[in-house]
Amino acid sequence: MSGQDSLEALRDALRAFAAERDWERFHTPKNLAMALAGEAGEVIEHFQWLSGEESAALPEPARAEVALELADVLLYLVRLADVLGVDLADAARTKMRINAERYPVDKARGRSDKYDRL
Amino acid sequence: MSGQDSLEALRDALRAFAAERDWERFHTPKNLAMALAGEAGEVIEHFQWLSGEESAALPEPARAEVALELADVLLYLVRLADVLGVDLADAARTKMRINAERYPVDKARGRSDKYDRL
Amino acid sequence: MSGQDSLEALRDALRAFAAERDWERFHTPKNLAMALAGEAGEVIEHFQWLSGEESAALPEPARAEVALELADVLLYLVRLADVLGVDLADAARTKMRINAERYPVDKARGRSDKYDRL
Amino acid sequence: MSGQDSLEALRDALRAFAAERDWERFHTPKNLAMALAGEAGEVIEHFQWLSGEESAALPEPARAEVALELADVLLYLVRLADVLGVDLADAARTKMRINAERYPVDKARGRSDKYDRL
Repeated sequence: MSGQDSLEALRDALRAFAAERDWERFHTPKNLAMALAGEAGEVIEHFQWLSGEESAALPEPARAEVALELADVLLYLVRLADVLGVDLADAARTKMRINAERYPVDKARGRSDKYDRL
Repeated sequence: MSGQDSLEALRDALRAFAAERDWERFHTPKNLAMALAGEAGEVIEHFQWLSGEESAALPEPARAEVALELADVLLYLVRLADVLGVDLADAARTKMRINAERYPVDKARGRSDKYDRL
Repeated sequence: MSGQDSLEALRDALRAFAAERDWERFHTPKNLAMALAGEAGEVIEHFQWLSGEESAALPEPARAEVALELADVLLYLVRLADVLGVDLADAARTKMRINAERYPVDKARGRSDKYDRL
Repeated sequence: MSGQDSLEALRDALRAFAAERDWERFHTPKNLAMALAGEAGEVIEHFQWLSGEESAALPEPARAEVALELADVLLYLVRLADVLGVDLADAARTKMRINAERYPVDKARGRSDKYDRL
């Protein structure tokens, strides 16, 4: 995938992966949204009994396991965006602009109370 | 962000966004994992009463709303990977290789029964 | 637990279970909310590749496995309500009344479009 | 519902609620599992930026809002169990017995490391 943008490369690789296995029929947005949520649930299970500090100092091999769970989330997210015809990088840039307007630096500084989004 | 890889550009933009707002203290892996799961839950709510077919033919403005929810998932995912020191694109490529070995084309073709992952 | 209300019996049993193991320190609302979401994610993984019809005709032992996942959700939910001082049965009855007002029979009949809640 | 067991009363009330609105067709296990996960995601969003201590000292009206979110989780959970033909209270008691064997008091005391379940 060298040279290609990482999100576009993943999108193309996942498209080919599904096509080769005749899995497109299972890849409705509904099903992929469920798979995405299931993987997000697996990420959370790694952190549920840890303090914030412990979660920031994850020892190996736990960190490597979490890395693969994050990968699962990304794969389903990229695939879901693709079947919906959504340009994920573009949507993320749009959302960053919305967040910058919603949380201006001078008002948001150091406060989490009015803060629901990144 | 032109010219830069999309995931790296998002990582850098989110790092700056958090630093400017003094939000790094809230961005423990534990908290970000929760935010990720919360956003995945918002994605799922768009699809829960739709059939698979309806989910694949989402009208505007629903599709645009979902695009921004997918963006939220991506932003938290990229930020979580960053604070964990995980290279997300690299983890995704590793996971793709694992999946290719786990689901060889000739055995996986058209079957969802043995199939829990992309 | 015979004779006692099922939700109250579970609450008491879980309280004793945590106390005997000195697990109360782990049972913050934050941690229990994460555990609840993680278990809900496990429930969803059972259904993600099934059609609606298939999900309604789950063969054994899948159905028995799902039953234990639902139990996990209930246990964390009851424990979370307990540490928050929430009377779960009372909250559920209140929510049922709200839903009955929000979705009057004559307007809601057979429509899922305006319908986000039970 | 007075006198009746709380879980059984909720099950019956939800069954009637769905029947009156002709919503049974939407209540496949697949759809209800999604709704359950979506509601669990809403619970988690209340706690994601709070410390464990803050989550245990939730001020009103936040606590009352969370109570209604917990109610939503319970309503979908009870309805999902019903359409699957699962006796939820019975499954919970079975799971409590399994947990008691899996986490004997003398080995589990004060440790969260080997502990993934209640």
